[in-house]
Amino acid sequence: MKIPDFKDVINAHRLIGGFVHTTPVLTSSAINKITGSELFFKCENLQKTGAFKFRGACNAVFSLKDEQASHGVGTHSSGNHAAALALAASIRGIKAYIVMPSNSSEVKKKAVESYGGIITYCEPTLDARESTLHHLAEQTGIEIIHPYNNCNVIAGQATAAKELVESFPQLDIVMCPVGGGGLLSGTALSVKSLTGNCRVIAAEPAGADDAYRSFKAGYIIPSVHPVTIADGLRTSLGEINFAIISQLVDDIITVSEDSIILAMRLVWERMKIIIEPSSAVPLAALLENKDSFYGLKIGIILSGGNVDLENLPF
Amino acid sequence: MKIPDFKDVINAHRLIGGFVHTTPVLTSSAINKITGSELFFKCENLQKTGAFKFRGACNAVFSLKDEQASHGVGTHSSGNHAAALALAASIRGIKAYIVMPSNSSEVKKKAVESYGGIITYCEPTLDARESTLHHLAEQTGIEIIHPYNNCNVIAGQATAAKELVESFPQLDIVMCPVGGGGLLSGTALSVKSLTGNCRVIAAEPAGADDAYRSFKAGYIIPSVHPVTIADGLRTSLGEINFAIISQLVDDIITVSEDSIILAMRLVWERMKIIIEPSSAVPLAALLENKDSFYGLKIGIILSGGNVDLENLPF
Repeated sequence: MKIPDFKDVINAHRLIGGFVHTTPVLTSSAINKITGSELFFKCENLQKTGAFKFRGACNAVFSLKDEQASHGVGTHSSGNHAAALALAASIRGIKAYIVMPSNSSEVKKKAVESYGGIITYCEPTLDARESTLHHLAEQTGIEIIHPYNNCNVIAGQATAAKELVESFPQLDIVMCPVGGGGLLSGTALSVKSLTGNCRVIAAEPAGADDAYRSFKAGYIIPSVHPVTIADGLRTSLGEINFAIISQLVDDIITVSEDSIILAMRLVWERMKIIIEPSSAVPLAALLENKDSFYGLKIGIILSGGNVDLENLPF
Repeated sequence: MKIPDFKDVINAHRLIGGFVHTTPVLTSSAINKITGSELFFKCENLQKTGAFKFRGACNAVFSLKDEQASHGVGTHSSGNHAAALALAASIRGIKAYIVMPSNSSEVKKKAVESYGGIITYCEPTLDARESTLHHLAEQTGIEIIHPYNNCNVIAGQATAAKELVESFPQLDIVMCPVGGGGLLSGTALSVKSLTGNCRVIAAEPAGADDAYRSFKAGYIIPSVHPVTIADGLRTSLGEINFAIISQLVDDIITVSEDSIILAMRLVWERMKIIIEPSSAVPLAALLENKDSFYGLKIGIILSGGNVDLENLPF
């Protein structure tokens, strides 16, 4: 199994730098006062397509050789990776085939379509998604881009933390949420390569704590029946991701659903930015564990801002 | 009547620079595609207290001589100036007395209180607000800081456009909303001093078009019974503001309520930032007049992000 290293991250940043937003890092005295720590929010919710996923998708699509790219790319996803892959493919001028469950929200369908993605609907099960995608790949010759268990995707996601710690080298900790582990493994690669002793801590919903249990057990324990509002974090860890996470990540903390909603609302009200529930999970962990983080300088990667405004949890 | 000039703006920026956020300038390919122009959004919704008003309040409070400041400052306001003045005063370590109408929203009361403002409630009429404030000033000796008809406030608000055009000197137009004229007069001062031929265009709700009518008439026509969702733009122009606006502003455009709500939602959905209705008015003007602005580089000052999440117009 090939594992990406920091050289891959540097190459990724060179390749995608002209296409992704160098997202701002925002601070909030009001939230610092509440948590007792000093927070630096890396706003990947303000990234193109509204999530960090665009970094990895760009790196994966732009890294393909011409003959690999010629028939287009594809994935199955109901979320941010689908929109990210569609836009990355359209920039390269190739097709993106997206397999989506038939019960996907209108907002998500519209996003993929607006970036030029070609949608194939299937039954809303993992089996149906995978078989539909593989059938499509056999017919069309597309390259399948996995949303997180892919070296180029990981190296792309790593550029967010790279920008963060290059601008704020004095951080004690960098935090991000963990679902499949694409963002977390990339973040760990960048932080551990660029800093002396900055810790990397992930946060995960208690109702979808497979990464926490895998991290403690030392092997991947799949996510079964996850229950959380943080829809981006319901997936199981990938193998490449877990290899990096188990080596480089310092800790994983689980949080309650109430804390996630509280943290989400706090960011909306105090910072005037829109984040999706998954983005709020690291701040939720700080709210639940103020004493452990008192006085520390903490970078938080806000992973995305794609929410349905008709259906807010508050 | 003293009129501030660009030297006052430079001095203001020096005085408040360490206390205000240098807010980011964001772009959105999706919104550019819709308007046909190239937009640069100066995000004063991400300013401390959630609005540009903090710049002017800081400059006004920090510019007071010690003996002027000793008894504190005061204003009557139900909106963003109240919170801004309360925080600016607390930074200087003096008291801020805020006269608020008794029917102010809980959100606004909480904001002023959270910054340490001392609230006096009065009947919800302009007469009651002014007489309550003047009575308070007689009792306490506070300095009254007008929300916009004040040279130091104008010079402070001007620093937002100064940052914008210093970072993006190639803009063809800078746009902002107009209510009392504090932001617009400051914006015009900075843009006309720092650029060769960048135009300054304001946008105003058609249901509160006193600035538009004043601008065309050449004298101040007060706002009577304004009807607009853009609650920050219901006030009448100040005299100092009008003197600058009539001399330096190129045009004022009025827009419908539907366009304001459409523009507001577009920014929320596509840019993942929270703006209040007043902030959406310039983009609404672009949506209503795409042909006139086709292909131009346009800076837009997003004035604030203070909305009641329980009471959204969509």
